[in-house]
Amino acid sequence: MRNAACYALSDWGTSRFRLWLVDGKGHVLAEKRSDDGLDTSRNRGFTQTLEGHLSALGAPADLPVIICGMAGSRQGWVEANYVPVPADLKAILSGAVKIEGIARDVRIIPGLSQSGTSPNVMRGEETQLLGAILDRDLSNGIIAMPGTHSKWVTLKEGRAKSFSTYLTGELYALLASQSILRHSVGDAATSASPDHPQFKAAVELMLSGERMLGELFGIRAAMLLDNLSPEGAASRLSGLLIGAEIAGAKAKSGGKNKVILVASGAMAALYGKALHIADHDFDLVDADEAVRKGLFVAASSIWPAKG
Amino acid sequence: MRNAACYALSDWGTSRFRLWLVDGKGHVLAEKRSDDGLDTSRNRGFTQTLEGHLSALGAPADLPVIICGMAGSRQGWVEANYVPVPADLKAILSGAVKIEGIARDVRIIPGLSQSGTSPNVMRGEETQLLGAILDRDLSNGIIAMPGTHSKWVTLKEGRAKSFSTYLTGELYALLASQSILRHSVGDAATSASPDHPQFKAAVELMLSGERMLGELFGIRAAMLLDNLSPEGAASRLSGLLIGAEIAGAKAKSGGKNKVILVASGAMAALYGKALHIADHDFDLVDADEAVRKGLFVAASSIWPAKG
Repeated sequence: MRNAACYALSDWGTSRFRLWLVDGKGHVLAEKRSDDGLDTSRNRGFTQTLEGHLSALGAPADLPVIICGMAGSRQGWVEANYVPVPADLKAILSGAVKIEGIARDVRIIPGLSQSGTSPNVMRGEETQLLGAILDRDLSNGIIAMPGTHSKWVTLKEGRAKSFSTYLTGELYALLASQSILRHSVGDAATSASPDHPQFKAAVELMLSGERMLGELFGIRAAMLLDNLSPEGAASRLSGLLIGAEIAGAKAKSGGKNKVILVASGAMAALYGKALHIADHDFDLVDADEAVRKGLFVAASSIWPAKG
Repeated sequence: MRNAACYALSDWGTSRFRLWLVDGKGHVLAEKRSDDGLDTSRNRGFTQTLEGHLSALGAPADLPVIICGMAGSRQGWVEANYVPVPADLKAILSGAVKIEGIARDVRIIPGLSQSGTSPNVMRGEETQLLGAILDRDLSNGIIAMPGTHSKWVTLKEGRAKSFSTYLTGELYALLASQSILRHSVGDAATSASPDHPQFKAAVELMLSGERMLGELFGIRAAMLLDNLSPEGAASRLSGLLIGAEIAGAKAKSGGKNKVILVASGAMAALYGKALHIADHDFDLVDADEAVRKGLFVAASSIWPAKG
């Protein structure tokens, strides 16, 4: 089966590494996930880390590898310079950087940058974006990619026109585990539920224009005064942050455009419910699938003879 | 000189302990500051900790002690139940709890609570509030007490009508030292400057209605794309958070009421500048002085014969 492999695809981020071997149609033949993010891999050597995982999957020595994510950052393996928006997404394909000095053909996809009054950058999400839109032949719309640093991209006539980043996931983790709210959320940080009444109430409050900064401490107070449960606290915190993100993104995009939500699992459920509360139409695209499709599209474009 | 001491006043919080010996007019005769916050003191014993500091200042054995702050919380020495708003501030004086089973007369001032749809609590700030308003015979207005958990109180006809809490200081510390923004702020976390152009721009952006959550990552991007300096990053982060706090408080209080700003040092400078940018009149009251005055008012009311 391994002989049928055409490409190796990798999403290599700050804290995790994912690798797929795919055939000429993009079907997954083998998969590897590990915690070999940038910090671990820098110490061990990027080539060694990658070759180790490839060999564990039985990949041939001449299998080309395409990589997206923070591996292409200044702190990564080789810097792949940002492509500025507005950008034809195909430009990120031609901007892929080849790693020099190694036998295997390995390329890293560049991120997107936005200069001017709202400076912004992304790395990894541009590949998700490519996968999400090429697959459905989308030229206009809003693409939401929630996560540690949620990205919202405005797509116009097939080009990534502008984008915003919301620190939602990172702030949730910090607040739930390190702030005064840790006494309220406790071990329930992963138990935020889209079906908890606190989630809905919090999303609605944020959509009404209230400011999140003035509502966070209320979670602590509600625990002291009203015995708010840890699950309730987690759901409320999640609702405040996701609600603030959606309210911000709605304000920027000017309202009711259809959203392509690129997410999986618990994240998909929470954001889906919040978009529903915000009365926002959306289509769900699986995040894992989107990044893999984006990587495959990039690989087929760079090495078409192999496709 | 110690013989002239009428009261010992203490502000006893989660992470710090402050003690003053004052005469019958409230003049400071001696002062002690230490890191003996709740956690340290709980292990060593609250009585032992307090008596140790009193004895270091040469306080007589029968000197009465009044305490405000988290020492009166459920996790503190003895719980002093919250007084609910709307509250006559004198109610916090009559609600002071006497510590039983010790020779010395020691009392702890209760906090304020707000139930209903915006649950909230404070401990320590109610005493600052008392000091700030009694001294200037204020009956109506907005009192802003910035800090780890900034409190904004609406005072009406001499009563604390309602209040809000903003997680500004805590969020600043978490974002500057633990989030992706630590790479931008670095060691400059204490170098946020009210005079840096980034501070003004950020405050103005938040007052314009923009959402803070969507602007935080821009600090990282501006470092990568525009070489934003650590001082610029700290000033921008501070401006975004303080700006969001003031925008939220303005929205709640309905606009242009005069503000009594209870703050000291760098905090006074940052909030003063932000209120100025927001075109908000304010009077500055020193935070240390306010809490000491509040404690003295409480002591004189509880033990009038000593005054």
